[in-house]
Amino acid sequence: MENSIKRIGVFTSGGDAPGMNACIRAVVRTAIYEGKKVSGILHGYQGMIDKNIIAMDSRSVSNILQLGGTILKTARCLDFRTTEGRLKAYNNIKEEGIDALVAIGGDGTFTGAEVFSREFDIPVVGIPGTIDNDLYGSDFTLGYDTANNTVIDAIDKIRDTAASHDRLFFIEVMGRDSGCIALNCGIAGGAEAILLPEKETGIDELIQKLESAAKDKKSSTIVIVAEGDKNGGAYNVAKRVQEKFDFYDAKVTILGHLQRGGSPSSFDRVLASRLGFAAVKNLLRGQTRIMVGLRGNDIVTTSLEEALRSKEFKLAEDMIEMTNVLAI
Amino acid sequence: MENSIKRIGVFTSGGDAPGMNACIRAVVRTAIYEGKKVSGILHGYQGMIDKNIIAMDSRSVSNILQLGGTILKTARCLDFRTTEGRLKAYNNIKEEGIDALVAIGGDGTFTGAEVFSREFDIPVVGIPGTIDNDLYGSDFTLGYDTANNTVIDAIDKIRDTAASHDRLFFIEVMGRDSGCIALNCGIAGGAEAILLPEKETGIDELIQKLESAAKDKKSSTIVIVAEGDKNGGAYNVAKRVQEKFDFYDAKVTILGHLQRGGSPSSFDRVLASRLGFAAVKNLLRGQTRIMVGLRGNDIVTTSLEEALRSKEFKLAEDMIEMTNVLAI
Amino acid sequence: MENSIKRIGVFTSGGDAPGMNACIRAVVRTAIYEGKKVSGILHGYQGMIDKNIIAMDSRSVSNILQLGGTILKTARCLDFRTTEGRLKAYNNIKEEGIDALVAIGGDGTFTGAEVFSREFDIPVVGIPGTIDNDLYGSDFTLGYDTANNTVIDAIDKIRDTAASHDRLFFIEVMGRDSGCIALNCGIAGGAEAILLPEKETGIDELIQKLESAAKDKKSSTIVIVAEGDKNGGAYNVAKRVQEKFDFYDAKVTILGHLQRGGSPSSFDRVLASRLGFAAVKNLLRGQTRIMVGLRGNDIVTTSLEEALRSKEFKLAEDMIEMTNVLAI
Amino acid sequence: MENSIKRIGVFTSGGDAPGMNACIRAVVRTAIYEGKKVSGILHGYQGMIDKNIIAMDSRSVSNILQLGGTILKTARCLDFRTTEGRLKAYNNIKEEGIDALVAIGGDGTFTGAEVFSREFDIPVVGIPGTIDNDLYGSDFTLGYDTANNTVIDAIDKIRDTAASHDRLFFIEVMGRDSGCIALNCGIAGGAEAILLPEKETGIDELIQKLESAAKDKKSSTIVIVAEGDKNGGAYNVAKRVQEKFDFYDAKVTILGHLQRGGSPSSFDRVLASRLGFAAVKNLLRGQTRIMVGLRGNDIVTTSLEEALRSKEFKLAEDMIEMTNVLAI
Repeated sequence: MENSIKRIGVFTSGGDAPGMNACIRAVVRTAIYEGKKVSGILHGYQGMIDKNIIAMDSRSVSNILQLGGTILKTARCLDFRTTEGRLKAYNNIKEEGIDALVAIGGDGTFTGAEVFSREFDIPVVGIPGTIDNDLYGSDFTLGYDTANNTVIDAIDKIRDTAASHDRLFFIEVMGRDSGCIALNCGIAGGAEAILLPEKETGIDELIQKLESAAKDKKSSTIVIVAEGDKNGGAYNVAKRVQEKFDFYDAKVTILGHLQRGGSPSSFDRVLASRLGFAAVKNLLRGQTRIMVGLRGNDIVTTSLEEALRSKEFKLAEDMIEMTNVLAI
Repeated sequence: MENSIKRIGVFTSGGDAPGMNACIRAVVRTAIYEGKKVSGILHGYQGMIDKNIIAMDSRSVSNILQLGGTILKTARCLDFRTTEGRLKAYNNIKEEGIDALVAIGGDGTFTGAEVFSREFDIPVVGIPGTIDNDLYGSDFTLGYDTANNTVIDAIDKIRDTAASHDRLFFIEVMGRDSGCIALNCGIAGGAEAILLPEKETGIDELIQKLESAAKDKKSSTIVIVAEGDKNGGAYNVAKRVQEKFDFYDAKVTILGHLQRGGSPSSFDRVLASRLGFAAVKNLLRGQTRIMVGLRGNDIVTTSLEEALRSKEFKLAEDMIEMTNVLAI
Repeated sequence: MENSIKRIGVFTSGGDAPGMNACIRAVVRTAIYEGKKVSGILHGYQGMIDKNIIAMDSRSVSNILQLGGTILKTARCLDFRTTEGRLKAYNNIKEEGIDALVAIGGDGTFTGAEVFSREFDIPVVGIPGTIDNDLYGSDFTLGYDTANNTVIDAIDKIRDTAASHDRLFFIEVMGRDSGCIALNCGIAGGAEAILLPEKETGIDELIQKLESAAKDKKSSTIVIVAEGDKNGGAYNVAKRVQEKFDFYDAKVTILGHLQRGGSPSSFDRVLASRLGFAAVKNLLRGQTRIMVGLRGNDIVTTSLEEALRSKEFKLAEDMIEMTNVLAI
Repeated sequence: MENSIKRIGVFTSGGDAPGMNACIRAVVRTAIYEGKKVSGILHGYQGMIDKNIIAMDSRSVSNILQLGGTILKTARCLDFRTTEGRLKAYNNIKEEGIDALVAIGGDGTFTGAEVFSREFDIPVVGIPGTIDNDLYGSDFTLGYDTANNTVIDAIDKIRDTAASHDRLFFIEVMGRDSGCIALNCGIAGGAEAILLPEKETGIDELIQKLESAAKDKKSSTIVIVAEGDKNGGAYNVAKRVQEKFDFYDAKVTILGHLQRGGSPSSFDRVLASRLGFAAVKNLLRGQTRIMVGLRGNDIVTTSLEEALRSKEFKLAEDMIEMTNVLAI
């Protein structure tokens, strides 16, 4: 099987994440080192359909290791959900001589990759690239660590001004279904309270915490709200809190897309390099429809089918318990 | 006159700004070096009225040079606008033995200081501390440089994701009346367009620029909107642009209070130290009702009266002209 | 057993590491939350001998989560290696009412803790705090992630100037016996070659790599040298390379103690909080002479005896293999 | 005169400095906006001699605003000091159609440019680009502000570990003839003492300061040493201090080339853009053999002859005086 692969196509899809470039670099250089050719597919699945494909060599990935974003760009692509779209995509990559794929992205990316690989019998390996850390099969996804560092840098800055004015800040962070960033950064940022999609927190319970913090004369008070919190986002939470509790002047910050950018952290650069390296190695070993991931300090593989079907509750019990303890 | 001052009171008032702590440190240590005593007044004018005043020595300002915010805290104070409030404040500081003041803040702070100094014949020197850079009498105000660095760091991160998705970003920065941060960071961040309070930009004119950028295949497109822009903030601008121009998917980021925090830049730490040093030196030389400031590389003084009355158009002509040239 | 503990003593010992303050905070607040009292022992074991011990409450650890270094200070202590020293230490902490200990540090710290705990039958839990990541029983030690980020930030800066001048840079990083930082940062920084204590690299082999890089017209060339590399440090390596290979102008940078400082990364703050929380919980559950650590995403415990006796080869095979592949 | 210029050549020469790329971008885009063509000369004067010259358009400077180093590379060039070298250079640029030059660099760069411009009657405008801030005619040179921020970031990190161990650190910063970085960063970093090339400080005087700091129980003690200090660099100073004063364990850090790299600060990006813009505008207005610079908030010009002949003492008096006051 190994010998049959001649040209690997690599692409990024879904939301971009810091470390994607480091990962592309690892895929390209590992493939070339192994004697294979590489094509970069631009704008994810859309680029397959539009035949927006470029040849890549070692130098095309020079000096990208440290850059945020993705040089291959990314897009969401509706056409690829249709049989016609995928057929067109297949014909295009076939014409380019691409006979194996490395797909960097999240859930949606892997769903497309799984179907495509079955339909056209083309080998594919997935790499978990999303700041949300919401995939089964890897302790961490690419970009998650960098996003956490970006968020705590923002929290540290906001705490300066919160403490100077005795103000209460509600900071909304990314995570529609996953509270990973919120929980992690809430602890790392010393937040008073953390609102997660996975766990309902009533407004009264929140106010009780804030009242107790105010009584203890804490100098700054920060509440982290995950995008997907059931109370409807930081603006709503702030409004409802202020109706009943006006000890502090409350302010809201929505960090938004800031969280997707930035030079990847050391952790994400190494993870990106290891996953890119492993993806190519596994493809050449004849593996297909798998995802590469990190467990402890080891690179492991999971079938895409299992990765897509399974759920992993990533919020460590001790961390949830801690949120009530460390802010006293 | 010099010998008559025994104890200097220092306080921060209005919005906090990075560098205020470095400035407090310089005031305290210079005064002590000169054989004077120092009191820190907490929460600005409110602390005078509430007699929230602490004695300070060299060690009370150890390890604060690099911290954002202000250890003396700040607040807006309505009571100080009344004669009764100021009388109470005066009696309190008199009881504490404070016979001269250093006031760190902006317009509002200086207005209060000017009136108070006249009413009770107490010497006062003002230090321009605000991220807005909107004061007459100094090329730069404390915190402005740090805020600019914070904003361009955010723009750099957002550009990563903007470029990966071919997206258009509207980023709102602080500046209700002053476009300093917007103009400076628009140029430093390579923005396509910059909307300033001082200069009206029509939505059609803006769309024309964006169309031209799209035609030139620019990889990312960022529009900086000052808080005080006449079109009504970034959300409104984005909405009106998208109604007529849907080439890109548009996103909005409001940087908000993030801009007030953070460890001060080298520039702000040095400026803070020089202004704090100069404020005490001038007080001891018998000066009063003046503001210390930076002109070129020199520390200068301006009477508070003139500083409050005068307007300085701080947007350099060449910078405004450049905005149309550098984004081509 | 749980009920018998009344006052926990916490200290940091050996080289300082980012995250130690976040860890002290977690220990203090968890203990207080559980109804226990806490004392801070200053300067590690030296503070026990000198009775340099302070009472701590929730507020004594406010606003330290984000600070590098350790507020409890650290020192190396020869007296504690003697029976007399340890007896004096024991009498002092007994007088203070301390009946259990949390020791934050590395190998040397744990050796002392193990002996002391046996001699005087005092419960002790160790927390791995060292940037070297050279302890058995935890995938990562406190401060390691932050040190890696500091190093890659430096490499990124040096690459700017290396690329502008077509220069060759030798960068020496910490690690007398452990190549963890060198290997990790070499990969994360895109180094041409990485010299590790665990693996000999001959000068000729190194020159061959550099010649090949020069031929491929790589724009910058960076060699990472671990402190403990057998060739004798970056200056020696550079000198010996330049004798035979003068294609580039070579420069040396020794990062030194820079690597120990800085605000802890999100990863280290969370790790610090979890380990501090777990240390107290384990003490109160009657555990002693154990170390708490991280395996995958779980907090685990190892006996100090095993931790001190065992060796863990922390350089992942794939990472070593990668170093020859990714720099092509 | 304006109409006669058809193609502007731009190059960077001497040591690289953050902001050079932002400056190249401004030169290229301003020239194109004004209807001129632009060539980039690689490796400074060496590229003229080797005819290493590329055509540039608006897109060739996309996404470089935020990058450290210089995409045009830089080198020191001995051949250009000979008449033959310069003649060859002139013939090469003539063949490329270049009829005006923008030279970005320091003293040496300007000396070459002045001679070359006179010999071959080719218009040239210089832009001060060096982290040393040692040029007459501009309050600040390109890269100086960024270098200062890099240095204080390092000092802040080192202070963490210095304070944790009660250690004394000697930090050597760039500046062979100019103490600008040392003085500025010594104040911004809260150093105990600052050794400058412009002002001799005896070892005994230094020890006296350190003794007094030790007596005052300052928690960390940092001495900044400029490269060009008369005592012979940080290693020598440390050695001589330790011979007489062993209260602290002393450590040395040489920041080295780290100081040249990094993404330019907001200040440097704006300065770079303004100077690049002004250089082209002045060339097109018929100016030659001038340097553009910043005075206060204004862009000014100075003849190269005057810039090269004049000395400017850039260490503000108050800053020198402050060094004895603020560290108490």
